[in-house]
Amino acid sequence: MADIQRLSLNQATTQNWSIQQAVEGCLRHGIPSVALWRHKIAETGLTQSVRLVRNAGLHVSSVCRGGMFPASTAQLRQERIEDNLRAIDEAADLLADSLVFVVGAAPSIPLADARRMVEDGIASIVPYARQRKVRIGLEPLHPMYAADRCVLNTIDQALNLAAPYSPAEVGIILDTFHIWWDPTVFEQIARCQGRIFGFHVCDWLVPLPDILLGRGIMGDGIIDNHALRLAVEANGYHGPIEVEIFNRQLWDTPGDEVLAKVVERFTTIV
Amino acid sequence: MADIQRLSLNQATTQNWSIQQAVEGCLRHGIPSVALWRHKIAETGLTQSVRLVRNAGLHVSSVCRGGMFPASTAQLRQERIEDNLRAIDEAADLLADSLVFVVGAAPSIPLADARRMVEDGIASIVPYARQRKVRIGLEPLHPMYAADRCVLNTIDQALNLAAPYSPAEVGIILDTFHIWWDPTVFEQIARCQGRIFGFHVCDWLVPLPDILLGRGIMGDGIIDNHALRLAVEANGYHGPIEVEIFNRQLWDTPGDEVLAKVVERFTTIV
Repeated sequence: MADIQRLSLNQATTQNWSIQQAVEGCLRHGIPSVALWRHKIAETGLTQSVRLVRNAGLHVSSVCRGGMFPASTAQLRQERIEDNLRAIDEAADLLADSLVFVVGAAPSIPLADARRMVEDGIASIVPYARQRKVRIGLEPLHPMYAADRCVLNTIDQALNLAAPYSPAEVGIILDTFHIWWDPTVFEQIARCQGRIFGFHVCDWLVPLPDILLGRGIMGDGIIDNHALRLAVEANGYHGPIEVEIFNRQLWDTPGDEVLAKVVERFTTIV
Repeated sequence: MADIQRLSLNQATTQNWSIQQAVEGCLRHGIPSVALWRHKIAETGLTQSVRLVRNAGLHVSSVCRGGMFPASTAQLRQERIEDNLRAIDEAADLLADSLVFVVGAAPSIPLADARRMVEDGIASIVPYARQRKVRIGLEPLHPMYAADRCVLNTIDQALNLAAPYSPAEVGIILDTFHIWWDPTVFEQIARCQGRIFGFHVCDWLVPLPDILLGRGIMGDGIIDNHALRLAVEANGYHGPIEVEIFNRQLWDTPGDEVLAKVVERFTTIV
């Protein structure tokens, strides 16, 4: 099963912790990598965030998240682009493996148009990401989020979005929660070879308690995280594996309990 | 917009009505077709159900539903097969355009195995369906149901399941709620040409109130039912269009109010 040296704590799992608390938690539990969220970076300040992870000797597997391209006016879309440029700066300063993109959605905009806005949005930020040496990781989200969170919903679609760019610059983030159901998931993972920038694990509980905050810890649901990890590795990804769990109940649990369980499940199930 | 002559009331929309009530409702509102559910047929009796729709001059667009193939033991799977043979008899007696298949899921069974059980299940009922001249309509369900309701989740997958059989015998049921998000939906609909056995409409509300009982009436959500109808027609389907809405709030509304709204939305939005 997975080596703890591969484990990265995605901060979404310990939503009530600041960056300092997450960093200290990783140190206590022997977790070598962390993924930081931008609202937490804003809270702590970028300089201080960089200092905290550097002093702790932690690796930053990703910054979450850029994206959110579709918007109803050109001005709003431009503001989102500018915010993405700031996200690129943050990922650069934190030496993150990649900046994760959740591309966004806008219920008032026809789906095909929103998807074109995503294409245009990516095109407009790639040059700056290249300049700052930040890799853009496109994360397909489960189709149940297509209306209001993310119009990028399959690995195939992510590969099409990434195709115009160098595999060194634009790649794919594979999260088992979002992709496990895909009847062609193993073929699609194989097609990602050379472009896998990140791998996230959690679980799908039955019944699903909540669309957004009902994700489970590995082993509590029906996702075969182990088989998916092997597939991702067979196709060239050997970097950090983020545990990213949006779950209100977990958030209400003391962080150290959560981390102990994450480490245990990661090393015995993933 | 859609002609009321194409409208079929799927009984799921008026969950609190018996078959007799649904039939009388259709007559009052000028709805020419109806789709019957098996638990309602069981309640009324098959002979009486046949008599009710025949006397009313209603067309039966489908019987819902066969399927539910994956199960943990061979005996259970055999029982499901036998139940499907009874469903075929009901669809035959009702002269339904097709028997809709929701193929099922079993959280305790690995996804790939469950999908193989579906293949095997279909193979084992096709001969009897052929004999009784009942068409098998495979309905892909939204990926959010893959864990516990239906492991058939994309049109592509449905086409692969149907491929070994004659397009006169095994086809696809396209429900906009389940397919709208697919980045390749229009290409996939085109691939269905010659195998489209049914078309269902409803809407995806934002935010989604409930995974199962939170579907909306056409026009209240973000699905472009009109564009999807045109695509389905361009690819050869000109049969009844079922309005199938699982919504607890709608179920608590008097049936005649529901039907008036269904007719209005169908003829102005679909």
